[in-house]
Amino acid sequence: MAKDFTTRKENYSQWYNELVIKADLAENSAVRGCMVIKPYGYAIWERVQAVLDKMFKDTGHYNMYFPIFIPKSFFSKEASHVEGFAKECAVVTHYRLKKGPDGKIVVDEDAKLEEELIVRPTSETIIWDTYRNWIKSYRDLPILANQWANVVRWEMRTRFFLRTTEFLWQEGHTAHATSEEAVREAETMLDVYATFAENWMAIPVLKGLKSPNERFAGALETYCIEALMQDGKALQAGTSHFLGQNFSKAFDVKFLNKENKLDYVWATSWGVSTRLLGALIMSHSDDNGLVLPPKLAPIQVAVIPIFKTSEQLLTISEKLSPVIAKLKELNISVKYDDRDNFSPGWKFSEYEFKGVPIRLALGLRDLENGTIEVTRRDTLEKVSIPFDNIIPTVQELLEKIQQNLLDKARQFRDENSVRVDDYQTFKETIDQKGGFVYAHWDGTAETEQKIKDETKATIRCIPLNNEAEEGKCILTGKPSKQRVIFAKAY
Amino acid sequence: MAKDFTTRKENYSQWYNELVIKADLAENSAVRGCMVIKPYGYAIWERVQAVLDKMFKDTGHYNMYFPIFIPKSFFSKEASHVEGFAKECAVVTHYRLKKGPDGKIVVDEDAKLEEELIVRPTSETIIWDTYRNWIKSYRDLPILANQWANVVRWEMRTRFFLRTTEFLWQEGHTAHATSEEAVREAETMLDVYATFAENWMAIPVLKGLKSPNERFAGALETYCIEALMQDGKALQAGTSHFLGQNFSKAFDVKFLNKENKLDYVWATSWGVSTRLLGALIMSHSDDNGLVLPPKLAPIQVAVIPIFKTSEQLLTISEKLSPVIAKLKELNISVKYDDRDNFSPGWKFSEYEFKGVPIRLALGLRDLENGTIEVTRRDTLEKVSIPFDNIIPTVQELLEKIQQNLLDKARQFRDENSVRVDDYQTFKETIDQKGGFVYAHWDGTAETEQKIKDETKATIRCIPLNNEAEEGKCILTGKPSKQRVIFAKAY
Repeated sequence: MAKDFTTRKENYSQWYNELVIKADLAENSAVRGCMVIKPYGYAIWERVQAVLDKMFKDTGHYNMYFPIFIPKSFFSKEASHVEGFAKECAVVTHYRLKKGPDGKIVVDEDAKLEEELIVRPTSETIIWDTYRNWIKSYRDLPILANQWANVVRWEMRTRFFLRTTEFLWQEGHTAHATSEEAVREAETMLDVYATFAENWMAIPVLKGLKSPNERFAGALETYCIEALMQDGKALQAGTSHFLGQNFSKAFDVKFLNKENKLDYVWATSWGVSTRLLGALIMSHSDDNGLVLPPKLAPIQVAVIPIFKTSEQLLTISEKLSPVIAKLKELNISVKYDDRDNFSPGWKFSEYEFKGVPIRLALGLRDLENGTIEVTRRDTLEKVSIPFDNIIPTVQELLEKIQQNLLDKARQFRDENSVRVDDYQTFKETIDQKGGFVYAHWDGTAETEQKIKDETKATIRCIPLNNEAEEGKCILTGKPSKQRVIFAKAY
Repeated sequence: MAKDFTTRKENYSQWYNELVIKADLAENSAVRGCMVIKPYGYAIWERVQAVLDKMFKDTGHYNMYFPIFIPKSFFSKEASHVEGFAKECAVVTHYRLKKGPDGKIVVDEDAKLEEELIVRPTSETIIWDTYRNWIKSYRDLPILANQWANVVRWEMRTRFFLRTTEFLWQEGHTAHATSEEAVREAETMLDVYATFAENWMAIPVLKGLKSPNERFAGALETYCIEALMQDGKALQAGTSHFLGQNFSKAFDVKFLNKENKLDYVWATSWGVSTRLLGALIMSHSDDNGLVLPPKLAPIQVAVIPIFKTSEQLLTISEKLSPVIAKLKELNISVKYDDRDNFSPGWKFSEYEFKGVPIRLALGLRDLENGTIEVTRRDTLEKVSIPFDNIIPTVQELLEKIQQNLLDKARQFRDENSVRVDDYQTFKETIDQKGGFVYAHWDGTAETEQKIKDETKATIRCIPLNNEAEEGKCILTGKPSKQRVIFAKAY
């Protein structure tokens, strides 16, 4: 299977697209820019959802659901928000079809909506329009709500998971009595995302603040986690916004505070999406296909019997059956593949390509020797171990692989993070090597824009708890008090 | 809280609407016909999803995700399907907004789609258009896929949960090599729905087949489960369709069978939606508010300390703390409400209104006596029991309440199921008493339509494994071989 597969070196972008399709993660649909998430890809998303949902609930949040449609006029209420979002989005104008004169289905012009509806690109507006009725006093606060939903942002150039017209995500929308509490909430959720990225996805991330240019449309402050992909490009993996009172003012959401005075409510919003799957794929996979961290792999262990006759299969299955039962008891996801219309070799490359962390193979010779063959996907290392050691070996190996992927990704990031002090070196680094470039910046939007225009690099973030360091802006030479992180980004 | 609450007798429909709003389940949104599902309502839906999803997976199914948009032309491909669905639906015609001359946001006429997109009312068409590429041979079959998604059907008259323009649901779409296997699948999923309704929702359901008039647009056979609400109206709670080869023919999905011959693929689809929450509310709730079956209640036990001083609260909390921990350990969902800005009486009616199955209250006198007060929501029965018995009492009571709700609902249904043999009695029964009416029907669509026009009653289903019985159609007097079930329906 891997033979006709493009390598990362040959063409990284093509490698990624082929990988997504050949590993059965997703495919393009009949609708431009929208993808079909196939069962294997969706199973990873389900794991992501389950873990995150529990983390949200453990931090006091709950779920709800708001309509997919937003009245057009809502977008005009928050000035910067409309700039950022209302432009490229799907607009519903009619609510009925009918048979045309030639028998074909046409839009019924008699069923035109008075006010057009926008398919939500994000839900701040309709949610804050509703919160107005939910919040009267400080006793109604905080609201710590989240929703799992689909959203639509019309994209001209799309890429599986990373940028699609429709995508799946969660969007938290919280309401608070004080600015401090809202900031704390935004930071808490950033920590949740960072913990999830590192502990579950095995992706090391930088936590930071966005520069004004890169801020969410309507936010006072955007926190983000940034990861580095194998081609040296950065990927924003999650954002958490401190919205201040922008939306409560736009939608007139006031509350009586403890001092019995009317004040506007403080807000946050935060989200991660199916984009995470893009980050997951790009961080760990190799020229042999997908590599999945054990904690998110739909199949953690593939078990393959090697047999010629059905009698042999029976003997092998009997030997394996208690082991498989025991693994499942330990909540390890096992696939026993005893199909007889596929060869062991075919199955080996299938599970390898699909990134299954551990492969076990048992044949007649193993039976005689009391051994079993164990192959780990991350290193492709293959060893024969005593059959009786299989349970602790698998348990240990799953942990090792998880850790190894994180270590490898961290090492890659460290090797591809540099400090640069002059613009020439900066341009060369961005152009030839990529990676995270720590450089001084004079703090202005103009400089940021000029650097972007000239190099395609953007400020990924201003790291949290950033080290103070006197320096000079790489472009203008003006004084700067800290380095920020530049990179080309997805 | 319950004081200004309409009773079922006064106005059943108003009772329902008030209940949904006052119990914090849902509310109307700014978008006509679309509702906001509030956290408490959504928590019930999450339980429904979790249980069903596990049942689907235990029967071999997996999830995937298809785009929310469907190209308009897809609907024309299956003739009866377009009749049923393409009419009342949201149509996306543009993909951009812009600032108009007066600064307001308007639709950008330059961004008109070449082909309009329909917001999915159901996904057979786009899924079968895709399955064409997934299925080449019998080895690719069966496909046993499901998706959890939102769908939109433009409704003029809406009602919380029961009929809304957007709703949440799951839609299974399976593909099979033989007709028999597809029929078996449709029946298996009907059984899953019926088991879920009875064992989890405590709602007894009739399993049956729809008459041709009531069949899903594009199906050869529609299986359904039908429940009876407290006002004597029926509610279709789930459907499972045997689609034959209609969609594979419409989308040209052929496969090589074991005999190496090309054949069209056999299909099913099946779904339940947030409508189930409407059924749940209407089946068990009473004039004191919501009544939830323990197995689906977001809060199973509310624990209320009765105190005046913070010292008293401390003493009571210390006593309760190990009990609450033990209940949680047993996977029982407990809410300990020690807020001091609400009175115990207020809390009692709050949890009663929200249908929490068990309420525990502990005051100083209980502490002295070594007792605790236990109130069950279904019967409102209140008893004082020895404090040390609390764990087994709660466990037992949760099971008892679950069973009692099912028994009560079954008894109600049985008392409201009658056999009727003449049209006059039929009309009176439907008009005055409601309920399930078992009557003979000549099997024609015309008769069914006429009965519907004259009485508003429809054939809810032809029961599975129906008893053969010679008789005469109540309307036409023509011969009939079995009784079918008529009712007015939601």
